[in-house]
Amino acid sequence: MTAERTRVAIVGAGPAGLVLSHLLEQAGIESIVLDQRTREDIEGTIKAGILEQGAVDLLAGIGATSRVHTVGERHDGIELLFGSEEAPERHRIDFPGLTGRSVWLYPQHEALIDLIAARLAAGQDLRFGATVTAVEGVDSDRPRVSGTTAAGEPFEIEAEFLVGADGSRSVVRPAVTGPSREGGYFREYPFAWFGILCEAPKSSQELIYSNSPNGFALISQRSETVQRMYFQCDPEADPNAMSEAEIWDALQARTPGVELKEGPIFQRDVLRFRSFVSHELRRGRAALVGDAAHTVPPTGAKGMNLALGDVILLNQALQELLLRGSSRGLDAYAEAASERIWKSQHFSWWMTSMLHLSPEASDFDRLRQRGELSMVVGSEAGRRYLAEAYTGWPYRTEL
Amino acid sequence: MTAERTRVAIVGAGPAGLVLSHLLEQAGIESIVLDQRTREDIEGTIKAGILEQGAVDLLAGIGATSRVHTVGERHDGIELLFGSEEAPERHRIDFPGLTGRSVWLYPQHEALIDLIAARLAAGQDLRFGATVTAVEGVDSDRPRVSGTTAAGEPFEIEAEFLVGADGSRSVVRPAVTGPSREGGYFREYPFAWFGILCEAPKSSQELIYSNSPNGFALISQRSETVQRMYFQCDPEADPNAMSEAEIWDALQARTPGVELKEGPIFQRDVLRFRSFVSHELRRGRAALVGDAAHTVPPTGAKGMNLALGDVILLNQALQELLLRGSSRGLDAYAEAASERIWKSQHFSWWMTSMLHLSPEASDFDRLRQRGELSMVVGSEAGRRYLAEAYTGWPYRTEL
Repeated sequence: MTAERTRVAIVGAGPAGLVLSHLLEQAGIESIVLDQRTREDIEGTIKAGILEQGAVDLLAGIGATSRVHTVGERHDGIELLFGSEEAPERHRIDFPGLTGRSVWLYPQHEALIDLIAARLAAGQDLRFGATVTAVEGVDSDRPRVSGTTAAGEPFEIEAEFLVGADGSRSVVRPAVTGPSREGGYFREYPFAWFGILCEAPKSSQELIYSNSPNGFALISQRSETVQRMYFQCDPEADPNAMSEAEIWDALQARTPGVELKEGPIFQRDVLRFRSFVSHELRRGRAALVGDAAHTVPPTGAKGMNLALGDVILLNQALQELLLRGSSRGLDAYAEAASERIWKSQHFSWWMTSMLHLSPEASDFDRLRQRGELSMVVGSEAGRRYLAEAYTGWPYRTEL
Repeated sequence: MTAERTRVAIVGAGPAGLVLSHLLEQAGIESIVLDQRTREDIEGTIKAGILEQGAVDLLAGIGATSRVHTVGERHDGIELLFGSEEAPERHRIDFPGLTGRSVWLYPQHEALIDLIAARLAAGQDLRFGATVTAVEGVDSDRPRVSGTTAAGEPFEIEAEFLVGADGSRSVVRPAVTGPSREGGYFREYPFAWFGILCEAPKSSQELIYSNSPNGFALISQRSETVQRMYFQCDPEADPNAMSEAEIWDALQARTPGVELKEGPIFQRDVLRFRSFVSHELRRGRAALVGDAAHTVPPTGAKGMNLALGDVILLNQALQELLLRGSSRGLDAYAEAASERIWKSQHFSWWMTSMLHLSPEASDFDRLRQRGELSMVVGSEAGRRYLAEAYTGWPYRTEL
């Protein structure tokens, strides 16, 4: 079999891979995007999404099909709820007032529907159902990926550069890290989120992050008629073991003072928490972006935003390499991306540890946590420090 | 033996007990202050002290003998040092620029010399070498303390109120908490500080808090010719097991880029870290203030400042009780004091956890910590949030 050729082979048609193919095309660099999932799978999997202003601006620039301002909903703040059951305190973090920025509630699958349409309209070579089984030659000038197409045929693609944008179970990552380094920097958490989707009106216009004596809950929204809510649970919990009434009781017990609007629950899942950063972000002619490079717990709402931060930098590096023949930017990529990655990892860990009731926590830890929340909400600087991170630091564009 | 009578019996002639006796006297309320140590012991034990502006103002008001502005030294900032050994980063936190306030480096024993002189000059009944062995009747209107005087004679004092200002090994605390609740809210740390006093010029005009790959160090000052420095060590370390050269090597390895000015080391000690808050701060006619009520790890420099925060509130409560016959303020004391206590506990824990290299930390934790330091120093809000806490929140005076 003769290998096909392209300039950049991108494994993974998630937000990172699709946006990267767009940015490369704008610079005149051809790419092929491969994903083992079908288009229907990708577009049909309902996923959460909070977009920073910088991410919104980036997506809005990707063509006329972008509905980021119509499907998305601007959120100008969040609420922090904490204290005792008898006297809960609710404190709003006013994003525009503190930072001049907002965030956008934008379901990730809606972002993907737009991106796929825009990329196909632009003539992007986008191959669904293509499973990559081998990654070779990343230390040469001609890295190769091979595998099986949707039709069950073998394929082999030879590129000038290879990008792993293929999520937390990345098949590109082992070629970048080497098998012995594949574990990465890692942290597990002794709790998970029990998430539901329900048909109900909004219980709150903005997200409510609650640290209650009974544990964490998050009240969030999908639309006027569909809501997404979470409560802290054991990582081993069985999502089907609770009745709907028990789920509502659990949510209400963790949101004292909030009147939850109940409705039929049509999806339930348990989200495990992990913090992960790959030991290596680039090797030779291959690099990792997005969840392939790192995962964050969802408390900070950073996942997709951080992925786009990687993509902006890698796009610069690839333009330098492929248009001007210089590997300077590529050599700077890992360190440049790491700055935002570790700040985002910290922020996600911080929001997680400040808001959850760890089963390992002592009474001292719980009261210290309450002191922390008082310190944050009681200070304009504390609220602004949180809001700056939540709404997102400006994207770095220079390598 | 007939009990002596006084209005308030204060156990402990540290900053908290002495300042309280002063404030009570100003309101016309007589007190007796007892301490088991000799005056020479109290005045001769060299102790660290960072005073917040509010604490300085309070001490400066205690009479003409106060040398807070002459012995003390105003510090307008601290430095945070972190990063790799090859490329350490130094970031100054500018206190007046961020908060309009400064702190004062003021050795606690100097504060005590002034306070004791001022209290004695004012005619305060101040008894050194008096060991309290029994505390009784806190649930009655006439609590009593009894014990042995410096001369070895028994004594018994009956008061209208009893204050435990007698430090972390308080003999009053068990009468307030009950023996079963005496443990309190508690956290231990898997590291300690190896502290030295040395004869040398200053290595830095301001305190340097260093998070280095080799662990924490703090460069601080006592005077132009005497310096105090610390480095992170094992809690079981023997302070006499290291040579002076090894100590300087350890300090220098934890402060990359700082040129330490060495000199003879004339004192060395290992400071254990603990966070503690008594389960109860008041019962009936007895209350706890200062280290008897709580201890903080030294990283946040909060100990003496927090003690004075308790004293200001308890003074209000005692005036209400003893001048106006109302226990309203006393009933509010524990909750009112707890607000500052838990914010200070959080801040001390935060500075400790952000700056130390825990032996339990994974590589992820260390890089997250680096991300946290970048997030704090990279944001004006982050620096101000830290500076507000370090320079001290305004004292609450209303119960």
